[in-house]
Amino acid sequence: MTAFAHRITATDGNARAGVLHTAHGEVPTPAFLPVGTAGTVKAMTSDSVRATGASIVLGNTYHLMLRPGAERIALLGDLHRFMDWPGPILTDSGGFQVMSLAKLRKIDADGVTFQSHLDGSTYRLTPARSVEIQHLLDATITMVLDECTPFPATPDEARASMELSMRWAQRSHEAFRPRDGYGLFGIVQGSVYPELREASARALLRIGFDGYAVGGLAIGEGQATTFSVLEATMPHLPADAPRYLMGVGTPDDIIGAVRRGVDMFDCVIPTRAGRTARAYTSQGVFNLRNARFAEDAAALDPACACPACTRHGRAYLHHLFKAEEMLGPMLLTWHNMQYYQDLMRGLRTAITERRLDAFADAARAGWAQEVPT
Amino acid sequence: MTAFAHRITATDGNARAGVLHTAHGEVPTPAFLPVGTAGTVKAMTSDSVRATGASIVLGNTYHLMLRPGAERIALLGDLHRFMDWPGPILTDSGGFQVMSLAKLRKIDADGVTFQSHLDGSTYRLTPARSVEIQHLLDATITMVLDECTPFPATPDEARASMELSMRWAQRSHEAFRPRDGYGLFGIVQGSVYPELREASARALLRIGFDGYAVGGLAIGEGQATTFSVLEATMPHLPADAPRYLMGVGTPDDIIGAVRRGVDMFDCVIPTRAGRTARAYTSQGVFNLRNARFAEDAAALDPACACPACTRHGRAYLHHLFKAEEMLGPMLLTWHNMQYYQDLMRGLRTAITERRLDAFADAARAGWAQEVPT
Repeated sequence: MTAFAHRITATDGNARAGVLHTAHGEVPTPAFLPVGTAGTVKAMTSDSVRATGASIVLGNTYHLMLRPGAERIALLGDLHRFMDWPGPILTDSGGFQVMSLAKLRKIDADGVTFQSHLDGSTYRLTPARSVEIQHLLDATITMVLDECTPFPATPDEARASMELSMRWAQRSHEAFRPRDGYGLFGIVQGSVYPELREASARALLRIGFDGYAVGGLAIGEGQATTFSVLEATMPHLPADAPRYLMGVGTPDDIIGAVRRGVDMFDCVIPTRAGRTARAYTSQGVFNLRNARFAEDAAALDPACACPACTRHGRAYLHHLFKAEEMLGPMLLTWHNMQYYQDLMRGLRTAITERRLDAFADAARAGWAQEVPT
Repeated sequence: MTAFAHRITATDGNARAGVLHTAHGEVPTPAFLPVGTAGTVKAMTSDSVRATGASIVLGNTYHLMLRPGAERIALLGDLHRFMDWPGPILTDSGGFQVMSLAKLRKIDADGVTFQSHLDGSTYRLTPARSVEIQHLLDATITMVLDECTPFPATPDEARASMELSMRWAQRSHEAFRPRDGYGLFGIVQGSVYPELREASARALLRIGFDGYAVGGLAIGEGQATTFSVLEATMPHLPADAPRYLMGVGTPDDIIGAVRRGVDMFDCVIPTRAGRTARAYTSQGVFNLRNARFAEDAAALDPACACPACTRHGRAYLHHLFKAEEMLGPMLLTWHNMQYYQDLMRGLRTAITERRLDAFADAARAGWAQEVPT
């Protein structure tokens, strides 16, 4: 077994490149985690997820506790075996999705009671139960249960919510069973208020975690605010510990956050966009349902080595979406994930070579291109 | 360029093993053609179709002429390039699906006029136009336009329909431009009447084709009748030319037809079943939605080397279908196609080793097993 450790190998400004060592393998950082909500990265096989270069995936505690159930996954082995992902897995705590998906949810000082959006049956999630579920799944990285403070929130609302999350962070820490190569991450809350973010970071540091997430962002506050909250938060986090910006974002969001010192990201954008014909490319975002692609034989993204780009032309992808063929979402999800993983690889290399500014400028210049037709 | 030729390398009873040589590569026979209706074998990448061992796929003229259009595919190259299938492609004539899918279809002596099921626009399909479309697609094997005689049909109806198909076969032959390694297949019609099937075969032989299909079967007449029609038809076909039973069938249908001298098959069963949770396995057919699989960690089919069987357990596949995740249809279609291609490989080997009876007995004994849970 290996110790859970983040070794920073290079920096460029506030950006860091490194390697997260875990019980299930190494994660080069900055890293993007494909979202495998229900034990599958939607529309991809585990082989194709690996082929894009992803080293770690995310599983959603809320979905998995409802179906097939954490105890059932444990009975069958663990989440790694279930979804054929022997590598590292980070699981969220379930809190965010209880608040966004469940019915009749009721939060109290000790946890949240809710009804499943699938069949209406009642569940209870507490800090200890969330950590237990993540243990049953054999999560490499466990997240503390928190309350994602809604946006907007008044300072008083944000403080009360943050303080509740800090009490739950303490309880999550008490429930977590440390094992070599496994980590528990705290989550900084505090809405858009720098003093609350600082207080939250200090509270988490007093407890002590293996990594620190920034939560409650990318929920409507806008990119400029996201970045200013990051700038207010990062100085209060330990230099070496991994920093994880939850639920972010577009390629531009990711570049901006990496420049502000973030090491890990997850987001549904590449998979969701892939199912709705939206392609993220080195030449910008475009919608493959657009009629201008109907006779466009060019590769979707000439800079990409995924099967959608090397085996087919844009006209074929356009046809697949028009014909509502499953292969459309399959190929485009693969492409988008490849684009995201290539972006992360590019960021890691650029940081190592101390040319992050030039890399970011080049990426933005590419996105601003007119897409040739 | 290679001549279009079917070399028979072994026989066992009436069954034959051989190799079909074409401009786009070799097809070991007996062969099963995955159905790639709209330029994609549903829920599979071309790489995964190849990985199952398929050497030739089928494209549907009706679907492709409506969307994206044969001229558009020709503009983009051809169907091989469009769908990333450099190997042999057989296209049907469109006739069968005009009669089963199109709206307001009207058949006359020269062809059929119909409205697209997609947008109601009017199209005309004649023997010459069908052959032209298949030429634009660059079909390795072109099928003549025929009328699939409905079942049941009186002898008079069946004769009139068959004779129309024979006139269209002549016109298709006149329209076809012979090229090295490309073939044109005639289609025997005649419903369930042996004398009509014989007359149809003789008519086609007088014209002379590169291969002979048996059409108008597997449309409700039942397996025993299908087999008796095959027995009445095969003796009237040339010994060496490839024989293609259109739209068939289950694994048991295929074994029975191979024993009666058929070399080629196509059917939507493995792909359609894969999307509806039905698995074809060495232990029989079962429905993965069944609750008995919820905690079954065993491989779907221990005899299969596909990713669904080697990477996951039945419980995972069950979960994917319950959660309506796209990966369920993706993995199960792959498995079913692997099962079909393994069956064909087994049949070819058994014929070569003159142990087809034992192979068929063993397959049936396997299907009769109780599936362990």
